[in-house]
Amino acid sequence: MTLKLTGLVPATHTPFTDSGEVNLAVIETQAEHLLRDGIRAVFIAGTTGESHSLTLAERLAITERWLAVTRGTPMQVIVHVGGNSLGDAKTLAAHAQTTGAAAIAALAPSYFKPKSVADLLLWTTPIAAAAPAIPFYFYDIPPLTGVNLPMPDYLEQAAERIPNLAGVKFSNPDLLAYQRCLHLSGGRLDMPWGIDEYLLSALAVGGSGGVGSSYNFAAPLFHRLLAAFGQGDWATARAEQWKAAQWIETLIRFGYMPSARRIMERLGVPVGAPRLPFQSLSADQAKGLDAALEQLGVWSWR
Amino acid sequence: MTLKLTGLVPATHTPFTDSGEVNLAVIETQAEHLLRDGIRAVFIAGTTGESHSLTLAERLAITERWLAVTRGTPMQVIVHVGGNSLGDAKTLAAHAQTTGAAAIAALAPSYFKPKSVADLLLWTTPIAAAAPAIPFYFYDIPPLTGVNLPMPDYLEQAAERIPNLAGVKFSNPDLLAYQRCLHLSGGRLDMPWGIDEYLLSALAVGGSGGVGSSYNFAAPLFHRLLAAFGQGDWATARAEQWKAAQWIETLIRFGYMPSARRIMERLGVPVGAPRLPFQSLSADQAKGLDAALEQLGVWSWR
Amino acid sequence: MTLKLTGLVPATHTPFTDSGEVNLAVIETQAEHLLRDGIRAVFIAGTTGESHSLTLAERLAITERWLAVTRGTPMQVIVHVGGNSLGDAKTLAAHAQTTGAAAIAALAPSYFKPKSVADLLLWTTPIAAAAPAIPFYFYDIPPLTGVNLPMPDYLEQAAERIPNLAGVKFSNPDLLAYQRCLHLSGGRLDMPWGIDEYLLSALAVGGSGGVGSSYNFAAPLFHRLLAAFGQGDWATARAEQWKAAQWIETLIRFGYMPSARRIMERLGVPVGAPRLPFQSLSADQAKGLDAALEQLGVWSWR
Amino acid sequence: MTLKLTGLVPATHTPFTDSGEVNLAVIETQAEHLLRDGIRAVFIAGTTGESHSLTLAERLAITERWLAVTRGTPMQVIVHVGGNSLGDAKTLAAHAQTTGAAAIAALAPSYFKPKSVADLLLWTTPIAAAAPAIPFYFYDIPPLTGVNLPMPDYLEQAAERIPNLAGVKFSNPDLLAYQRCLHLSGGRLDMPWGIDEYLLSALAVGGSGGVGSSYNFAAPLFHRLLAAFGQGDWATARAEQWKAAQWIETLIRFGYMPSARRIMERLGVPVGAPRLPFQSLSADQAKGLDAALEQLGVWSWR
Repeated sequence: MTLKLTGLVPATHTPFTDSGEVNLAVIETQAEHLLRDGIRAVFIAGTTGESHSLTLAERLAITERWLAVTRGTPMQVIVHVGGNSLGDAKTLAAHAQTTGAAAIAALAPSYFKPKSVADLLLWTTPIAAAAPAIPFYFYDIPPLTGVNLPMPDYLEQAAERIPNLAGVKFSNPDLLAYQRCLHLSGGRLDMPWGIDEYLLSALAVGGSGGVGSSYNFAAPLFHRLLAAFGQGDWATARAEQWKAAQWIETLIRFGYMPSARRIMERLGVPVGAPRLPFQSLSADQAKGLDAALEQLGVWSWR
Repeated sequence: MTLKLTGLVPATHTPFTDSGEVNLAVIETQAEHLLRDGIRAVFIAGTTGESHSLTLAERLAITERWLAVTRGTPMQVIVHVGGNSLGDAKTLAAHAQTTGAAAIAALAPSYFKPKSVADLLLWTTPIAAAAPAIPFYFYDIPPLTGVNLPMPDYLEQAAERIPNLAGVKFSNPDLLAYQRCLHLSGGRLDMPWGIDEYLLSALAVGGSGGVGSSYNFAAPLFHRLLAAFGQGDWATARAEQWKAAQWIETLIRFGYMPSARRIMERLGVPVGAPRLPFQSLSADQAKGLDAALEQLGVWSWR
Repeated sequence: MTLKLTGLVPATHTPFTDSGEVNLAVIETQAEHLLRDGIRAVFIAGTTGESHSLTLAERLAITERWLAVTRGTPMQVIVHVGGNSLGDAKTLAAHAQTTGAAAIAALAPSYFKPKSVADLLLWTTPIAAAAPAIPFYFYDIPPLTGVNLPMPDYLEQAAERIPNLAGVKFSNPDLLAYQRCLHLSGGRLDMPWGIDEYLLSALAVGGSGGVGSSYNFAAPLFHRLLAAFGQGDWATARAEQWKAAQWIETLIRFGYMPSARRIMERLGVPVGAPRLPFQSLSADQAKGLDAALEQLGVWSWR
Repeated sequence: MTLKLTGLVPATHTPFTDSGEVNLAVIETQAEHLLRDGIRAVFIAGTTGESHSLTLAERLAITERWLAVTRGTPMQVIVHVGGNSLGDAKTLAAHAQTTGAAAIAALAPSYFKPKSVADLLLWTTPIAAAAPAIPFYFYDIPPLTGVNLPMPDYLEQAAERIPNLAGVKFSNPDLLAYQRCLHLSGGRLDMPWGIDEYLLSALAVGGSGGVGSSYNFAAPLFHRLLAAFGQGDWATARAEQWKAAQWIETLIRFGYMPSARRIMERLGVPVGAPRLPFQSLSADQAKGLDAALEQLGVWSWR
């Protein structure tokens, strides 16, 4: 049960049709695109995948399709199973294992929030236990869940109660806690970094990979960043990070969710517009985004 | 389509068994208890009902059971259908109408949050449209959703787009916005107040009823409060409100969710312990709670 | 040492000249205006008085002028002495007592925040002790300080350590804590309410007066509200509260701080524009505000 | 007017006596200690210096003493002049320039908060203008001020209005905004990083120095980090950062402010305990802290 997410793991978009239905047919195109970009693991139905906007039935179907289209390929599938309903999370976890997922991950419930590490342990233990044969990651994303508990404490206590504990997907800007987590258990745990805008900052203090949204469209750029970092070529690593920062900043300016999805369309992966409560780009906004990206030169960065 | 929630509307607990399954059999007991207490409408599967902790299948089953056990009684059933998945909300809305609910209500999604009144309108319009023959309430509860949008603006704009708009369940301490909402549309809309701890403060500025958790166990007290208020007997109204405040404060001190459920047990309505991420009361805590309530004298307040 | 702020206590504006200097000469006009409006106590250099934007020297001068111009009148002066510097607060407290203030008040420091009731006690005890001969109020205003500690606990512990403890200026929407505070010590403490937009909601649960900004310009209206409340005429009380709510809401829409100051100007009390970081009204905004107030009919409400 | 804070700039403690008075005599000891540690610039009366807890008179006296004791040494003094009172800030700015400071810095007011970049420009322009002959830094520290405005926008607009604009002291974890700021104006501006716990993360994306609290006691460690970084020796840089992280984490665990001050005492710089609302370490806590630091081995890291 030793999975190490050491490279780039895209947090994939859930494809939607124009009328907002899940568009399962596009998943094969996503997988092919990512395989061509050198990706070997995906994180499905997470925040980028809009898990909270999906029904349970849709999540089960998405998982099945991803496992089907990646069968026989080198792509590993990590299934996000978290949400507010523990029952759904356990169902999704068990299903992920049965279907052949490489690992599962779950974030904290966020309507009723765990108030302590003890609460979080009670919450995550049965989820991990529902997929005992595959690794379990906690997905820490305080800016969205509003749950901000000390990960080092969680990991220390979870190590005793969750045999398949693999680590944390760290979408939390606290790089002090991140350093501590990296050093726990002699570095045995896996801490994929979740803020692509400064992946290099996490690598600098010991990180070795990331799970994030930009790896759907900017994997070649980030692969160059990782290679430069590995060779001690910091000038190049920094230059690539700065390109990525500008690219992401532009998407944020026009609305991250619909803009990132438009990028995918332009790459030949028609994932459609996001679901409500996100609004789609208007025609004018789309034109503005296209022009801004053109001016930045992002297409030559891939 | 004119429903007015002018009296007390309990936000009911979802009954759970010792192993945490939904205990449908207890719903009949709940309904009988509340009918005996003079209640004529319930708000099911809301925050007190732990909607976010339920699966879709459980919510459908709970709705069906409530409609079944109240058939032929004077009890009206308002079904909360909100959550993070718009698909689930529409399914629940349509099902509520078909099953015979008196009205539906929905809160805002809270993982991905609407950022404007426009976003919230886009979100709530299709939910209301999925149950077009019955009234729709928006359920505003910023302390839990983190969505804090101006209700007067929402109502003004929603009036044009949501034909079955009935009003707002107001679980928001902003009594300035509340006054404005009460006066919109010539007072045609319904604004049940959602903070039982100071129902009297809302009545004072024009409110006429409440949807809340305490009406499950303290309806007789609050009926006396309403009656005194109606007769202009403010000393009595205030005295009853102070009793309620102390009662609720005691539950908060021991953990509101498990404590309120224990109260129900002691009233012969075995709704069980809450689901995670809430923890149950330990035996010692339960003893402490019982003693505190005894000392306060709550049983004589019913 | 029993002061009871049972009626209306305006939190006065600090008058500024066009170039932003403190305009001491206007204080006499303020006092005369308020005395004519039937006011018998003022709360100076609080939030409305922009205490945090003043220098220590300015605060001392303002206090001296208020005490000078009210000498021989029935007006009592409560001096706000709080801020981030404990040294300044003690200086201001001692000076207030010497100068003849009726009481002092202090809010919590808000850059470095007290994290517990114990911290807050350590902070407030020396301030109260610096003016031992006059009453001390804690000024609780969590929306601005970000310090949200349980006032009932604070009062219980402060009663033993602060001999001149008089109560709390309650600018906190938590009407459950407010009820508890009203009942502490057999109601001996004074709890002036600080949210004018729903003073009636506080009166309904037992409050008996308020310290607030609107009483600078809307005292006649609020006096009618209090009188109606005292006579059990709830319809009138509610109607007056609704007028006040609309008035305040209009000021908020145009920017509360500069708009409230403009109202004062129009009443013949030239307090000037607020200091930075508040911006002044543009000429167009001022015209828009004037028109909105005219349409509302506020001048007939005084 | 080109100052570049490229190395380590300690944000110094304000020394206090046992009775809490400013202890000016210790400033010379501080300066000698830091000079011995190779420090060439200090940032005085900032957050670590507890500026908000000081009176204006104390801040003036501290500035004068620092300038006096560093006269004739290679040490440059940057004076923090910010706070809630614009008048005080301007007084402090003018005084800093007259006294010989190398630069000034100011954070945003935090009781009344600027709501836009325009508000912040109106606030900072007169402060910078009060010391026109020396560089001005904005000090961005959203976790403490609650003011979170986009620094790239601020810098772009400030460049036209503040001739002596030098850059931003960046105590904000947003490393995306940091990258953008580093690239503005062709990198002409200075962006000292303010979160010592992950200085290396900021260096990695282009930072070149830091202003922080740990450089008071851990300068030798951070100098090794900077040297290793400069030589492309990332393993060493990371190892030093991890030592620093553990050291700081230990101080946080025992209460950062009193613990950092105790460290200084043990280094022969008796800065005393912090002012309220911080509490001092109890004897037991101090013993626990000492033991934890001993076990960590921090004394060999200097």
